[in-house]
Amino acid sequence: MHELGVVYRNITRPPRPDVEALAPFGVSTLHEAMGRCGLMRPYIRPVYPGAKLCGSAVTVLLQPGDNWMLHVAAEQLQPGDVLVAACTTECEDGFFGELLATSIRARGGVGLVIDGGCRDVAALEEMDFPVFSRAINSKGTVKATLGSVNVPVVCANAMVRPGDVIAADTDGVVVVPAERVGAIAEAAHRRETNEEDKRRRFAAGELGLDMYAMREPLKTAGLRYID
Amino acid sequence: MHELGVVYRNITRPPRPDVEALAPFGVSTLHEAMGRCGLMRPYIRPVYPGAKLCGSAVTVLLQPGDNWMLHVAAEQLQPGDVLVAACTTECEDGFFGELLATSIRARGGVGLVIDGGCRDVAALEEMDFPVFSRAINSKGTVKATLGSVNVPVVCANAMVRPGDVIAADTDGVVVVPAERVGAIAEAAHRRETNEEDKRRRFAAGELGLDMYAMREPLKTAGLRYID
Amino acid sequence: MHELGVVYRNITRPPRPDVEALAPFGVSTLHEAMGRCGLMRPYIRPVYPGAKLCGSAVTVLLQPGDNWMLHVAAEQLQPGDVLVAACTTECEDGFFGELLATSIRARGGVGLVIDGGCRDVAALEEMDFPVFSRAINSKGTVKATLGSVNVPVVCANAMVRPGDVIAADTDGVVVVPAERVGAIAEAAHRRETNEEDKRRRFAAGELGLDMYAMREPLKTAGLRYID
Amino acid sequence: MHELGVVYRNITRPPRPDVEALAPFGVSTLHEAMGRCGLMRPYIRPVYPGAKLCGSAVTVLLQPGDNWMLHVAAEQLQPGDVLVAACTTECEDGFFGELLATSIRARGGVGLVIDGGCRDVAALEEMDFPVFSRAINSKGTVKATLGSVNVPVVCANAMVRPGDVIAADTDGVVVVPAERVGAIAEAAHRRETNEEDKRRRFAAGELGLDMYAMREPLKTAGLRYID
Amino acid sequence: MHELGVVYRNITRPPRPDVEALAPFGVSTLHEAMGRCGLMRPYIRPVYPGAKLCGSAVTVLLQPGDNWMLHVAAEQLQPGDVLVAACTTECEDGFFGELLATSIRARGGVGLVIDGGCRDVAALEEMDFPVFSRAINSKGTVKATLGSVNVPVVCANAMVRPGDVIAADTDGVVVVPAERVGAIAEAAHRRETNEEDKRRRFAAGELGLDMYAMREPLKTAGLRYID
Amino acid sequence: MHELGVVYRNITRPPRPDVEALAPFGVSTLHEAMGRCGLMRPYIRPVYPGAKLCGSAVTVLLQPGDNWMLHVAAEQLQPGDVLVAACTTECEDGFFGELLATSIRARGGVGLVIDGGCRDVAALEEMDFPVFSRAINSKGTVKATLGSVNVPVVCANAMVRPGDVIAADTDGVVVVPAERVGAIAEAAHRRETNEEDKRRRFAAGELGLDMYAMREPLKTAGLRYID
Repeated sequence: MHELGVVYRNITRPPRPDVEALAPFGVSTLHEAMGRCGLMRPYIRPVYPGAKLCGSAVTVLLQPGDNWMLHVAAEQLQPGDVLVAACTTECEDGFFGELLATSIRARGGVGLVIDGGCRDVAALEEMDFPVFSRAINSKGTVKATLGSVNVPVVCANAMVRPGDVIAADTDGVVVVPAERVGAIAEAAHRRETNEEDKRRRFAAGELGLDMYAMREPLKTAGLRYID
Repeated sequence: MHELGVVYRNITRPPRPDVEALAPFGVSTLHEAMGRCGLMRPYIRPVYPGAKLCGSAVTVLLQPGDNWMLHVAAEQLQPGDVLVAACTTECEDGFFGELLATSIRARGGVGLVIDGGCRDVAALEEMDFPVFSRAINSKGTVKATLGSVNVPVVCANAMVRPGDVIAADTDGVVVVPAERVGAIAEAAHRRETNEEDKRRRFAAGELGLDMYAMREPLKTAGLRYID
Repeated sequence: MHELGVVYRNITRPPRPDVEALAPFGVSTLHEAMGRCGLMRPYIRPVYPGAKLCGSAVTVLLQPGDNWMLHVAAEQLQPGDVLVAACTTECEDGFFGELLATSIRARGGVGLVIDGGCRDVAALEEMDFPVFSRAINSKGTVKATLGSVNVPVVCANAMVRPGDVIAADTDGVVVVPAERVGAIAEAAHRRETNEEDKRRRFAAGELGLDMYAMREPLKTAGLRYID
Repeated sequence: MHELGVVYRNITRPPRPDVEALAPFGVSTLHEAMGRCGLMRPYIRPVYPGAKLCGSAVTVLLQPGDNWMLHVAAEQLQPGDVLVAACTTECEDGFFGELLATSIRARGGVGLVIDGGCRDVAALEEMDFPVFSRAINSKGTVKATLGSVNVPVVCANAMVRPGDVIAADTDGVVVVPAERVGAIAEAAHRRETNEEDKRRRFAAGELGLDMYAMREPLKTAGLRYID
Repeated sequence: MHELGVVYRNITRPPRPDVEALAPFGVSTLHEAMGRCGLMRPYIRPVYPGAKLCGSAVTVLLQPGDNWMLHVAAEQLQPGDVLVAACTTECEDGFFGELLATSIRARGGVGLVIDGGCRDVAALEEMDFPVFSRAINSKGTVKATLGSVNVPVVCANAMVRPGDVIAADTDGVVVVPAERVGAIAEAAHRRETNEEDKRRRFAAGELGLDMYAMREPLKTAGLRYID
Repeated sequence: MHELGVVYRNITRPPRPDVEALAPFGVSTLHEAMGRCGLMRPYIRPVYPGAKLCGSAVTVLLQPGDNWMLHVAAEQLQPGDVLVAACTTECEDGFFGELLATSIRARGGVGLVIDGGCRDVAALEEMDFPVFSRAINSKGTVKATLGSVNVPVVCANAMVRPGDVIAADTDGVVVVPAERVGAIAEAAHRRETNEEDKRRRFAAGELGLDMYAMREPLKTAGLRYID
C-alpha cells in the first residue's frame, strides 16, 4: 500500500452510464445499498452548502504541506473523474484552491475529496466546484516531495482504488467499489422505491413500531411500559 | 439514573401556553434568564441554517449504533413535543433521518435534539424539520438493544427530565426545568425589555463603561491607563 | 508578553489608505504575499456565511469566562479598527453578543476576531457585524478580573500587536504587521495580476506541469510513470 | 439544576461500611453491576499512574477559571468523602493543586474528580492524593464568582448528587447512586465470582463461543464460515 | 471492502521466522524501512507503559458498542497472531478486557490493536498482555450484530489484510504487508547498522549539517546567516 | 514575525546563574510568579514520565513534515540551551528522534520543546533526554524547505524569543522573558516560602476560608448556607 513516486496512467473506470446511474442517489441511500459500508469519516465536509458530486476516482497520495502531486494528478484526469487526495499523515494545510479547480474543470474533472485543507472557498462556491475536505485553511503548500497517483489509498479511513466511484453530498462521502457499481445502483433504486412507500405511511401517522413489526421483539427483549 | 428497558407513558408536561410563552426568546436570553444555567455543550449544532425549536421534552436513551428506541419514543410524542435523545456512550452514527422526521412530524413532534449523528440533512432542511446534533453522518444504525423512554437523561452534559422545555436556535440548546417555565418566561421578557433600552443607548455611542458604572470598580481592581 | 491590568491609550495605526489598500484582497492572497506567514489557526471561523473584515487591531487580553475588558477596549476603538481578543487560557464561553456589537459599531469598529466564543449570531448576521470566533456559545460571562488592552497578544497561535492589520474572510484570518502594510498590498496586487494570467491559461487546459515547468524536476526526483 | 450561590450543609451519606464494600471492586465491574450505567466520559483520567479512590460525593459547581468554591467545599468534607467538581462550562484551567490537596486530606477527604484541569501533579503523586481530571494545566485561577456546593451536578456527562458514591481507577470514573450502594456491592461480588470461574475456563482454552453458547445465535444471524 | 457476516478460516501467514525477524526492530525503524508507509494514526496508544508486540494479523471488523465478533475471532487465532480490530464507525466503548485477553493468550495470541476502547487495563498490565487502543473506557458492549473476521480492514487509517505483520511499541503501530516481510527485515537491519554509525558520530559532536552534506543545498535554497 | 530562510547566529542569553536560579522551581510556581502568564497550551506534554528541563531558548521555525531546520539549529546550540521548535502550521509528524537527541546533547543542549511530533521515545527515556511535544508519532520527515533559526516564534500559543528561558515539567511548559529572569526567580522564591507556611497550616486542618479571609467576601457576594 501507499507506494511512493509512481503514477499509474492506465486505470479501469466503470462504464460512464453506470457511474451516472449512481448520481441521483444520496450518500446515505448508497451507503445503505452497500450494506452499510464504504463511508469516509464524517470529518470530511463540503466546503460550501449544497456541494455534491459523483464520479470515478483518480487517486493521489500527498505529502504533508506539499501539493506537487495534485499537478501530476491533474494530467491523469478524464471527463467525469473525481480527484481523491489522501495524505501520508494528518495535515490540514490548504493544498487546493481556485487555480487548481480551474485546471481540473478544464480537464473534465468534476470535483475533489481531500483528507486535508482547502482554500479560496468563496471562489470555489462561485464556480460551483464541489470540494469535500477536512478543513478550510489559507496555509500554502510547497512542491518538493513525491507522492503517487492512481495507487490505492486510504482516505479518511476509507479504502479507495482508482476507478472506484465516489459520491458526496451534505451527508458525507461514500466509496462504491468499481465492480459493484451496477449492483449498488439497483439496490439503491429498490431502497428508494421502498422508502417512498414508507414515507407515505409515516406521513399518515403509522408508527415504525407497527410498520417494522417491532412490538413483539421489543417485548421479548424485555421492554416494560410503565403508566 | 439511566434505567434501561423501560418506557414511562405518563409524563407531566407544562401547560402548552407556558411553553409557547418561551418560544419567542432566543437561547442566550433564556440561559441568562435562568441565571446562566441549563445549556447543553456547544458541540450540539443545528443541522441546517436557521433551524429553531421550542417544546416539551420526551426523552430517549439510545445505545451506540442503535436507533430502536427512537421508534419506541415516537409513539409517546404528543403535539408540541421535542424528542431529546441521549446515548449511553459517545456515538456519532446517523441515528435519525428523513423517515423518522416524517413520523415524528405526523405525531405532532416539533423537532429533535440528539447527542449523536443525523443524516438526510438536505431532506430535513427541505421539510424544515429542526434537528440539533453533534454530527452529520450517513452511518446507519441497527435495532437490537433496549434503551429507555421518558427517563431523566444527561444529554450533551445537561440534565433533561421528561416534560422539561427545550429551546434551541443558532446559539445552542437550553433546558428549562418544567417547574420554572413560567418564571423564566417572565425573566426573559424583563431581560429583553431591559436590553432594548441598552441597545438604543449603545447605538447612540454610550459606553458600557458608563452604562454599567464600571470605571470605579476597574480602578479599584487596579487598572492602569498608560498614555 | 501578556502584561495584565493595563490599557495603552496611544497606539500607532497604519495610515488609513494603506489599510484600505489591503481590503480588496482575500486572506489566502495576503498570506501568500507575506511569504506564507501570519495566519491564525484555522479553528477561527466566521460566525455567519460571507462575514469579512479588514482593519487595524485594537487588542484585548481576556480572562476565562470574563468579558470585562471588552468594555474597556470598546472605548479605545477608532473608526476602522478591528477588535482582536485573546484569552489567557482556552475558553469557549460567549464573551460577545449583539449589545457589544452595537457599541463597537457605534464607535466605528468594523468587527471582532476572538479566540473564544460568541453568541447572538442570528442578530450579528442581521446587523452584518463580522465576527470570527472559535465557538458559538450562549454561555454568559462575568465582569470580575482584569486583563489588558493594547498589549501584544497571541491569538489563535498568531502574534498580534496593536495597530497590525487584520484581514478575515471565509478562508481564515491573517495578521499583517503594521510596518509591512504597504509592501504587502503591493505584493498582493502583483500576485493577483499574476494569478489572473494563470487562471486564463488553466481554464484553456494548460497543465500546471507545463506552466510551472515541473516535468524535469519531477523526473529528477525519481517519479516513474507506469502504463 | 445547577442552582448558584448556595451551600447545602446537610447531606445524606450512605453508611460507611456500604461505601467500603464497594472499594475493592474495579470501575468496570461496578459499571457492569449497575447495568452499564453511571460512567463519566472517558476523557477524565487519573493524573498519575495507579491513582484510585472510592468515597461518597461532596459536589461543587465551579465557574470557569475560578476555584473559590473549592475552598467553600473543603469545609463541608467529612472523612471518606470525595470531592466532585463540575464547571458551568468547559474549562481546563488548573483549579486544583498541592495546597488544596493538603487541606482536603487534613479534613479526611480521599480524593478529587474534576471536569477541569489540575496542577502540581508531581507533588500529588508523591502524596498519593488521587485526582481524576480532564487536563493537567499550570494555569492559575481567581476567586471572584460564586458557584455552589452540594447541589446535584452533571460532571463529564454523568449526574452526581451529594452522597452518591464515586469509584475511580485506571479504567475511569463511575457514579453509584446512594440508594443503590448495597445492591451494587452485591451484584459486583456476584459478577466477580462469576468472572473468576470464566477466567479459569478461558485460561484453559475454552472459547467464548462455547462458554456463552454463541454458535447457534451467530448462525441464526447469518454468519458464514468460508474455507 | 468491509464485507459483513463472514469468517475466512484459511489465511496465509508469513513464515514464523520471517515475522520473528521483524520483532527486534522498533516501529519507527520499520516505518522508515518501508519507505515511510504503513503507520496507523498516532491516536492509537499502548494501554500501559512498555507494551510492545509483533505478530501476524487476524483481522476483525466490529460494530459500534458490540464485541460479538471478538469471540468469533478468538477461535481463528494461531500462536503468534495479533488480533487487529477495526470498527464500522468511530466508537470508544470498552470492547475488550481481561477475560478476552485470557482467552486470546490461551490460544497463543500475542496481543491486540483496536480502533476502539479497552478496559481492565490494570489487569492487562499485570498479565503483560499488550493492547494498543484509541481509548481506555469501562463502557461495556453487547453481542447482537454481525461483523466479519479475516476480511481486509482499515484500522486507524491503515489498510490491514489478514496475515500482514503488525508491530507496535511506544512510538505507534505499523503494518508490514505479508509479501514484503523479508525485504523489510533486511532494510530495517541495514538502517539500524547505519544508524549505529551515525549515533557514534553525533555523540562525538559531528553535526547533521556535515554528516548529511546539507550546507550546500541549504545555501542553494537561499538560507542566510546573520551575525 | 516568522521570517523564513534566516539564521540569527548571535543571540543574547541571560547569565547562566540566572537561568540556573529558575531551575529548582516548578512550572506552576513560575507561572504564578510571572503573574499567570507565559504558559504554552497544555497539549504539550512530556514524552516520558518525569521529564523536566530548564534552559535558554534557541528557537526554530519548521515547515510541516520537514525537519531540515533542526539540523541547522543544532549548530547554534550552546551548553544549557533548550531547542524550541514551532511549525508554520499544525503538524504532528515525528520531526525528532534519538539521533538528533544525541547530537543536541553532544552540543550541550538540555532538551526540546516542539509543537509537533516526536519518535524513538523509549530511547529518549533511556537517555533521559527531555522532550515536550504535542504527539508521539513514528512518521518520518523530509529535508526540503527552509524555515528559520533564532527568530521569535509562537509555539503552542506562547511567544518565544531566542534567549527567553524555558522551564518544563509534568505540569507543562512556561516561557520566562529573558529580561525578567532575575525578578521571576525572586518572586518564585518568595512564593515558595509563602506556600511552605500555608502547606503547614492546611496540613494542620486550617481552612482556606479562614487563611485567606474569604468568609466575608463570600457573604458579600451573596453565598447562602442551607441546613
